[in-house]
Amino acid sequence: MTTSPKKIRAAILGASGYTGAELIRLLVRHPHVEIVLMTADRKAGQSIETVYPHLAGLGLPDLMAVGDVEWPGLELDVVFCALPHATSQEIIKGILHETGHGFVDEMIIERPADYANAIKGSVKVVDLSADFRLRDTDVYTKWYGEYHQAPELQKEAVYGLTEQYREDIKNARLVACPGCFPTAALLTLMPLLAAQKIKKDGIIIDAKTGVSGAGRSLREANLFTEVSEGMHPYGVASHRHSPEIEQELSKSFGEDLYVTFTPHLVPMNRGELETIYVNLAEDQTADDLRNHLQDCYQDEPFVHVVEEGVMPATRHIRGSNLCLIGVFADRVPGRAILVTVLDNLVKGSSGQAIQNMNLMFDLPETLSLEQAPLFP
Amino acid sequence: MTTSPKKIRAAILGASGYTGAELIRLLVRHPHVEIVLMTADRKAGQSIETVYPHLAGLGLPDLMAVGDVEWPGLELDVVFCALPHATSQEIIKGILHETGHGFVDEMIIERPADYANAIKGSVKVVDLSADFRLRDTDVYTKWYGEYHQAPELQKEAVYGLTEQYREDIKNARLVACPGCFPTAALLTLMPLLAAQKIKKDGIIIDAKTGVSGAGRSLREANLFTEVSEGMHPYGVASHRHSPEIEQELSKSFGEDLYVTFTPHLVPMNRGELETIYVNLAEDQTADDLRNHLQDCYQDEPFVHVVEEGVMPATRHIRGSNLCLIGVFADRVPGRAILVTVLDNLVKGSSGQAIQNMNLMFDLPETLSLEQAPLFP
Amino acid sequence: MTTSPKKIRAAILGASGYTGAELIRLLVRHPHVEIVLMTADRKAGQSIETVYPHLAGLGLPDLMAVGDVEWPGLELDVVFCALPHATSQEIIKGILHETGHGFVDEMIIERPADYANAIKGSVKVVDLSADFRLRDTDVYTKWYGEYHQAPELQKEAVYGLTEQYREDIKNARLVACPGCFPTAALLTLMPLLAAQKIKKDGIIIDAKTGVSGAGRSLREANLFTEVSEGMHPYGVASHRHSPEIEQELSKSFGEDLYVTFTPHLVPMNRGELETIYVNLAEDQTADDLRNHLQDCYQDEPFVHVVEEGVMPATRHIRGSNLCLIGVFADRVPGRAILVTVLDNLVKGSSGQAIQNMNLMFDLPETLSLEQAPLFP
Amino acid sequence: MTTSPKKIRAAILGASGYTGAELIRLLVRHPHVEIVLMTADRKAGQSIETVYPHLAGLGLPDLMAVGDVEWPGLELDVVFCALPHATSQEIIKGILHETGHGFVDEMIIERPADYANAIKGSVKVVDLSADFRLRDTDVYTKWYGEYHQAPELQKEAVYGLTEQYREDIKNARLVACPGCFPTAALLTLMPLLAAQKIKKDGIIIDAKTGVSGAGRSLREANLFTEVSEGMHPYGVASHRHSPEIEQELSKSFGEDLYVTFTPHLVPMNRGELETIYVNLAEDQTADDLRNHLQDCYQDEPFVHVVEEGVMPATRHIRGSNLCLIGVFADRVPGRAILVTVLDNLVKGSSGQAIQNMNLMFDLPETLSLEQAPLFP
Repeated sequence: MTTSPKKIRAAILGASGYTGAELIRLLVRHPHVEIVLMTADRKAGQSIETVYPHLAGLGLPDLMAVGDVEWPGLELDVVFCALPHATSQEIIKGILHETGHGFVDEMIIERPADYANAIKGSVKVVDLSADFRLRDTDVYTKWYGEYHQAPELQKEAVYGLTEQYREDIKNARLVACPGCFPTAALLTLMPLLAAQKIKKDGIIIDAKTGVSGAGRSLREANLFTEVSEGMHPYGVASHRHSPEIEQELSKSFGEDLYVTFTPHLVPMNRGELETIYVNLAEDQTADDLRNHLQDCYQDEPFVHVVEEGVMPATRHIRGSNLCLIGVFADRVPGRAILVTVLDNLVKGSSGQAIQNMNLMFDLPETLSLEQAPLFP
Repeated sequence: MTTSPKKIRAAILGASGYTGAELIRLLVRHPHVEIVLMTADRKAGQSIETVYPHLAGLGLPDLMAVGDVEWPGLELDVVFCALPHATSQEIIKGILHETGHGFVDEMIIERPADYANAIKGSVKVVDLSADFRLRDTDVYTKWYGEYHQAPELQKEAVYGLTEQYREDIKNARLVACPGCFPTAALLTLMPLLAAQKIKKDGIIIDAKTGVSGAGRSLREANLFTEVSEGMHPYGVASHRHSPEIEQELSKSFGEDLYVTFTPHLVPMNRGELETIYVNLAEDQTADDLRNHLQDCYQDEPFVHVVEEGVMPATRHIRGSNLCLIGVFADRVPGRAILVTVLDNLVKGSSGQAIQNMNLMFDLPETLSLEQAPLFP
Repeated sequence: MTTSPKKIRAAILGASGYTGAELIRLLVRHPHVEIVLMTADRKAGQSIETVYPHLAGLGLPDLMAVGDVEWPGLELDVVFCALPHATSQEIIKGILHETGHGFVDEMIIERPADYANAIKGSVKVVDLSADFRLRDTDVYTKWYGEYHQAPELQKEAVYGLTEQYREDIKNARLVACPGCFPTAALLTLMPLLAAQKIKKDGIIIDAKTGVSGAGRSLREANLFTEVSEGMHPYGVASHRHSPEIEQELSKSFGEDLYVTFTPHLVPMNRGELETIYVNLAEDQTADDLRNHLQDCYQDEPFVHVVEEGVMPATRHIRGSNLCLIGVFADRVPGRAILVTVLDNLVKGSSGQAIQNMNLMFDLPETLSLEQAPLFP
Repeated sequence: MTTSPKKIRAAILGASGYTGAELIRLLVRHPHVEIVLMTADRKAGQSIETVYPHLAGLGLPDLMAVGDVEWPGLELDVVFCALPHATSQEIIKGILHETGHGFVDEMIIERPADYANAIKGSVKVVDLSADFRLRDTDVYTKWYGEYHQAPELQKEAVYGLTEQYREDIKNARLVACPGCFPTAALLTLMPLLAAQKIKKDGIIIDAKTGVSGAGRSLREANLFTEVSEGMHPYGVASHRHSPEIEQELSKSFGEDLYVTFTPHLVPMNRGELETIYVNLAEDQTADDLRNHLQDCYQDEPFVHVVEEGVMPATRHIRGSNLCLIGVFADRVPGRAILVTVLDNLVKGSSGQAIQNMNLMFDLPETLSLEQAPLFP
């Protein structure tokens, strides 16, 4: 491969969270990307190695407060936004204004064919927050308790589940990366619902996640002593990833549907496992589901449907952008059990974000994401 | 309480497994029990502190091979049998013979009122293996791949779920303690099915367990490096605790029913959590379920139904005989989510076994089981 | 033993920390103690089970702010003070005043034989902070950066290393319990220095501790994700337990001495291990050291010197008041290696505190501390 | 960089251990290496993904028994030997014969200048076992209990501590990679001893390692339940890495010296930390030591001396080839404390092996080793 003469100039907003650190870890080895800006309001003025000693010696810029950034002179090509929910909207709105390209007007949005040209030369935004994931801003308001500050941008945003929306992502200016739980659930269920292989009712997603999903914020519940040697559910029937999952599954199936979704906190750093219980459609078997998923994902570099009898485990995808899906027949007739694993910080957030960026810049989709998992 | 002048003379068969060690840990502080025999074939001749340094200095007998035991002179009152499945039947049959009391004949079994007298003076057996849990020996053969060697004793055995079978246990000569997964599932679901508060269809038990449930045997899958920092399901739709759960739930409900049961291995030593998904019966709500369970368990020393909004966590019952049950409404109408935790080595096996022994010897049920949980 | 008709009325100040919770865990099973007061300023008004779900259902009083306590009516017999360093002095001074007994005057302090009578009927204080451990208040000021607020009480305080100061503790009104690191170091080294079995120079204490030693306070460094799957030293050559260790070791040896002390944080909840490197005195061998320690501790219920070749491990004393000491010859002539383990929350703090309380009230020293370790 | 037309053909002997798996993880991303052979006697005939699911989908050959390999046709360029100690000698002897080049005769060995030419075209061997690390085969026999089977090759072998023996490694046919503990100790101490910055007496190495260092073999002591939530030393004053450390340190200092070395097992997968206590030479300070080490390593890509006040932690180098060294003054005059961390499976074995291979084939030393550490 020949190296492009000019590197993509990237900014990471919210670089002091685990998602931000993971973006850095992966991007520093990307042959075509240069990180030129990193913000972190509470750590402004510090070097990244003070905040994250594992990222020492990589020649990165110091952290800034986002309010101190002078955008015009930066010549950014892409902004990764790993800010807390609800703060992203205003900032992304500002970025798209201040970098000189303004909002795409309604007319253009209605003409998606022209869209790629319209933003030619513009900065592109890969958002890792929840702010642009929900197409219906009323649903956003219901679950996040605030009015959406950028409803026009919301209309423009592409939901960044790469394997489902690859073509839209290629042409997008703003990609809203899915949450970690939705990524696993949707990669497993969307193809099955779209093909009517399973019923829309009775879908139960029992999710388990490592602690890095809770971020680096100081909460008693995340202390080592509180987490280690134990486990518990949280957000039962009230987790904010539910509407995101239902939005996409309903779209796939063609009718509104609801899921039961229960996340659990497990004493491990990384990794997410979803055990998904479904009712089979008429005449369908677990083997049919597996075959269909294998057909769907046979050419995908990161999503693999394991052979019958193989059990996905989170430790086998640690640190990688892989997602593994296993399909099992239940003893109870008419049911199947699906088991899906991914690394919540990679395919569940930063890895998928980079995969999307690669698409947005016409690069090979796997760039900087090829590293094999770390085990043990 | 006045101390009985003569202590109960107890034997532990299979003392080198974690279940055996846990029996020792608890029994050494029991005011009315003396451990007079401990067997462990592969560790025969060793002191217990060689095998389990945490049990040093307790004045315990050395380990013997079970084949070397001279039963008649032992004057045993109770035998705890923590042997591997399939080996318990023969040995228990032998014990009940050799200790001079033989099998209770069919006639006596049919007259339970006389039973307590019939075995007066006899040794009692608390079995922690799966060998006498399944009432239908054909079901045993189907799941364990062997014919049952003591079908008459099977008829006599009482299923040792204390809170359900307390009166039978008091009079039993042979108690078959439930598996750890069934204990949590049955304590949660039996009262609800018996009262027709939930439907018999669609029960899904997503179980998570610490690694001590796998015992101390040498298997690659149980190495620290293989378990730590990851998780995975196992025995999907094929775990041997399924028929045990279904036997008891069907009995409660009055009709045969089947459950979906999926255990997962979690990187922690102890603790078991079951997230149970149920369909509500007509006009029932999650609150109704909670109220009913609170009524059922209000006088129980070890089973507690937590208040609305409180989340059971395994770390909050570690090392104790407690079982906590939480009830949550689902967002999907007509459904509820139950969360149950216990320590797999205590309430899930050795603690429940001692609770049963206390009953069998007319002692306060909580003796030697009062210790508060260990946290953090 | 006959149960005393009237229970010891105990208060726990600082009940919301791990040390406080551990005092509760152990004291609720103490046959002669009743917990009548628990304070926690930041959690005032809450039930203990809200703060510590593992302590639910024990019939304990709700948490109060220490400033809201009306001391006179409480009829306290003992106060356990588990407050942060520097806050204990004022409060303990106040307690000893307000409970109506005032300070023991200088004259009485000079006549220790009369001391036990002088405080007869008084409240006794078991302090778990560092505030009264250092006999020289200048040393306190140097290491803690503040002037001591109760120097007269400091003179009265007995250093609560039970096995060394048992007789003084019996007669004390104020016992200053040692830190967790000093407890392990001093139990190992004081007898050897007192008997001149080792040299005073070149003592190196490489200590490793579980995370509960850092308490429940919110610090980024104590998050699960920061601690798990890694380890590091902290406070190298500057940890506040150093002067405490040196004070006692110098006293044993009869000359001032200095030690090298390096603590490390290990990803486990409980447990502390010290690997101690010493230079042997002339003609001494590792065997001599082991024999001497075995002689010293042969009648101790909680301190055990293991046989040659046995390796102490923290998991073998978890949750118990035990301390295990192993002695090993080094390959380098003239040196030995000592390995000592204890549970930092039990023998390293709350267990030792209760052991001292038992002594102060003429009770069997092991009461409420008999529970065997929890393993696995 | 231009890609070489022909890839280096590599074999991995002992591919089913963790060291073998780590070689694979790193080599599959090496732009100039092709893995053409992998052996594992007990797993012969299996695919690598059956043995290591995290290495699925990489297009690797199936595992073979080493005895079934037909060497002549393989056209190997390099053999990584990750076999158990004592089995490597015979096999490496055989390889160097069977691949057609035979032993370098004594004469050639005596003329090192000609050596590189003599083996031109030969297969090169990177041995990760202990078999060729000890220059004195009598020392080998003493510590490993067996006679050395290839003493001539021992003479030829270069000790593979890259930063010390870079030039020799470039020209070597057989490199004996250091053990994980020696790597950390030697990188820290050799420059200090060579420059007489520290005294040769009184060096104490207190080492802590994750469990992957124990390999994947089935031992009770390595079960999750035995390791988790606890720690302990092992091999006190008898670990086989001692003579290897002493051999190299003595060489650096110019006189025989002995060290105290105590390894500890810590409940984490990867990572190794050594806390090293030294006596300063006359007029030397901790700052002098730090400055000297910084000078020595300023151009090294993988060994970094951290700034004053920064604390090395194993989690900050996880999965990477980095080694971090910190230097601290002790409170005790004349002493310093050094803290060194590395990943035992990377810089401690497989990463260093690949670093050496890069040198042996005139490639940039960092190839395939550039990945930033994985945190959290």
